[in-house]
Amino acid sequence: MNDDTTNHPSRVLADFAARLEHADIPAPVLRRCEDLFLDWAGSALAGKTGAPVQMITAYAAQMGPQDGPSEVLVSRSGSSPFFAAMANAAASHFAEQDDVHNGSVFHPAAVVFPAALAAAQALGASGRDLLVASVAGYEVGIRVGEFLGRSHYKIFHTTGTAGTLAAAAAAGRLLGLSPRQMLDAFGSAGTQSAGLWEFLRDAAHSKQLHTAHAAGAGVTAAYLAQQGFTGAKHILEGAQGMAAAMSSDADPAKLTDRLGQRWALAETSFKFHASCRHTHPAADALQQVFQREKLEPSQVDSVTAHVHQGAIDVLGAVDVPETVHQAKFSMGTVLGLIAAHGRAGVGEFEASLGDTAVSSFRPKVTMALDPEVDTAYPARWIGKVTVRTRDGRELHGRVDEPKGDPGNTLERGEIEDKAIRLAEFAGAATREEMRGLIETCWSLERLPRVGRLLPGAAR
Amino acid sequence: MNDDTTNHPSRVLADFAARLEHADIPAPVLRRCEDLFLDWAGSALAGKTGAPVQMITAYAAQMGPQDGPSEVLVSRSGSSPFFAAMANAAASHFAEQDDVHNGSVFHPAAVVFPAALAAAQALGASGRDLLVASVAGYEVGIRVGEFLGRSHYKIFHTTGTAGTLAAAAAAGRLLGLSPRQMLDAFGSAGTQSAGLWEFLRDAAHSKQLHTAHAAGAGVTAAYLAQQGFTGAKHILEGAQGMAAAMSSDADPAKLTDRLGQRWALAETSFKFHASCRHTHPAADALQQVFQREKLEPSQVDSVTAHVHQGAIDVLGAVDVPETVHQAKFSMGTVLGLIAAHGRAGVGEFEASLGDTAVSSFRPKVTMALDPEVDTAYPARWIGKVTVRTRDGRELHGRVDEPKGDPGNTLERGEIEDKAIRLAEFAGAATREEMRGLIETCWSLERLPRVGRLLPGAAR
Repeated sequence: MNDDTTNHPSRVLADFAARLEHADIPAPVLRRCEDLFLDWAGSALAGKTGAPVQMITAYAAQMGPQDGPSEVLVSRSGSSPFFAAMANAAASHFAEQDDVHNGSVFHPAAVVFPAALAAAQALGASGRDLLVASVAGYEVGIRVGEFLGRSHYKIFHTTGTAGTLAAAAAAGRLLGLSPRQMLDAFGSAGTQSAGLWEFLRDAAHSKQLHTAHAAGAGVTAAYLAQQGFTGAKHILEGAQGMAAAMSSDADPAKLTDRLGQRWALAETSFKFHASCRHTHPAADALQQVFQREKLEPSQVDSVTAHVHQGAIDVLGAVDVPETVHQAKFSMGTVLGLIAAHGRAGVGEFEASLGDTAVSSFRPKVTMALDPEVDTAYPARWIGKVTVRTRDGRELHGRVDEPKGDPGNTLERGEIEDKAIRLAEFAGAATREEMRGLIETCWSLERLPRVGRLLPGAAR
Repeated sequence: MNDDTTNHPSRVLADFAARLEHADIPAPVLRRCEDLFLDWAGSALAGKTGAPVQMITAYAAQMGPQDGPSEVLVSRSGSSPFFAAMANAAASHFAEQDDVHNGSVFHPAAVVFPAALAAAQALGASGRDLLVASVAGYEVGIRVGEFLGRSHYKIFHTTGTAGTLAAAAAAGRLLGLSPRQMLDAFGSAGTQSAGLWEFLRDAAHSKQLHTAHAAGAGVTAAYLAQQGFTGAKHILEGAQGMAAAMSSDADPAKLTDRLGQRWALAETSFKFHASCRHTHPAADALQQVFQREKLEPSQVDSVTAHVHQGAIDVLGAVDVPETVHQAKFSMGTVLGLIAAHGRAGVGEFEASLGDTAVSSFRPKVTMALDPEVDTAYPARWIGKVTVRTRDGRELHGRVDEPKGDPGNTLERGEIEDKAIRLAEFAGAATREEMRGLIETCWSLERLPRVGRLLPGAAR
């Protein structure tokens, strides 16, 4: 029998999640949480057209209640917290436009916000409570991901596994679980923790099931704990706990790393361009040159993207893309979109194959291995381009951190724009409706009760 | 990308489950399946009073629809297949009276029947379809448990992990999944596979959550596959599949071991006595002597139970039990119950602490290490007792296989009696109601449509 009175990592983390208060959280962290919430809503709406999203949403409607207090974003319907969390989580990660925490290789928004929103709407919680609970979910999930380590990520999809605890922390905080109940919720979440990478080999739909399962299991764990359902007290570091089962390099110190001082939420990156991550630094650098010099694509003679070897390895194969997916791995296409449209979002990619402004720019782009960029990688993703103009100028662009990373984060206008475009792209919400949702996000602090983010569908 | 056309273990097993027909299954296996179904229903009803069972059932009612086609046994209510499967699975394993497959250390009934019954009731399937689907679930789950091996069981609760595939196979067969869809269902089930032993250290409620989760996840996997939701095709043996993630001694040959010839379902053991398994062989041997000699407890001077060392290690600590739980680990109490009442069921144990017939018999019992019994263990659990009577006789009892194991299985009358007693004990059904349920079990083959097993509660 474990000693029930001492502090051990699982307990310290659960205590933190249960006791976290609004006053404990610095204002910039709360503002960033609002940013991430809007970014999540856009990403989830962007999942509307995804086949696996539609199937999980249909399953939730089939197995759940006809209506309920918790909003299913892509269907504009109401359900119970469990199924709303499940359906929204399935939608969150589909367009791959949701946020990512680099150190834990964990996508917090996809599992935290579905659970938090579902519980908040069911409980009639305030916007402030939603924010506090979401911060708790981020801080817990990211630390669990860091704890499970690289060996875990080789076989397990960390967003699915650590995601159960992240979702439980968020839902549990909204339910007002005591520290002891929160530890029970962690136990019940961790013992449902699952998600294997094997599906990648078959390009199967499991990624959406993983986020759905994690959010649902976390909600279950939290609601059960509220009733007094007990769980393992050392679910993370115990001899038959998650690390023993699913990791060979787990580090318990990560679980409690500077709790209350370090805000892991603020380390989370937004995804800006809708392309392969290896194209982002050069895209940012080119955007800088175009904006600074007020260039037109026709003025450009050539572009050299100075890249790390990994970029050449991954992107070198695609010359003229034949599918939208391939276009996202084509440096010429990405830089062509930046040059012609100033952006490389999901909508631009969808139209890129027949876009003559892009196809005429694409041959101007070459990649060159750059020693400085290559040496800095992967700790830093430096972006460098050299642009030669028809009138003989040589222009240089450089970014030291890709757009969306914490040191080069998105402005609120950019986040709004991304969310509106994602929702419109998927036909999930109009610009008008998104304006309302955005207003909700920016006023969460003052919202006495979290209602629906979008108008309901006609029944 | 995996080769999609060749036969590999996951596919062969999925094909078997999808194509299994009534005509393929020998009649004795079908009859045994009916036996196991009744035994399961009794075990699930016995869970009614369990706190974790009540909490999961309440959660299902909170998150699920108000009513539905699938029966929640302990609450006499209707729900969707997902929540009915979850609630019934939570109930199945609580009293620890449900069946067990020794080789796989897997409790098939607790996960297979909840999923099968829930789907059958929702689909209006026939009793014959329910039986075929249940056999598919047993054959799949047991083989997955054997495949995952001993290293898996050290950390993972096999009934929780292998249980997701067992439940998916059963529900999937009822849904009429194609072989390809069944393989997808296996992928979705396996990537949700979870359940850690860590909770044992804290005597937490997780065991009920594990069976509930497995049955629910299996139902989800099957229903999603019916919609076309794809999963990993090598979820069991793939490089990032279940074995790679959760076992170090997995043997893929076990997955397809004599499919269609060997019926693993028929190897499943019933639990007869409600006590620690180590007391069962001696209890059976004593029962044999008492029945053969028509003895009364008062005629007995002493009993020697000839046991293996493990029995002495586990049972030696308890002299006079102070709790019902301890009574189940007291050889003197168990043999006292057999002597006084002819049985050691849940009801007898509940009354055993104040039972003078038992407490007066208890001091007559001693254990002695027996070389033959000890050498045969654990492959065979031989039961041997020597009874000395007050009139100077020395009587010997011996069983080579404990009551309930395949070679010494229960008669239908014994299964009926056990189920009735379990249901009555928990106040979950009257003897009359159980008579109706038993009639349903014995007529499953002829039932055109599986209805409720018990009358519904007044609303």
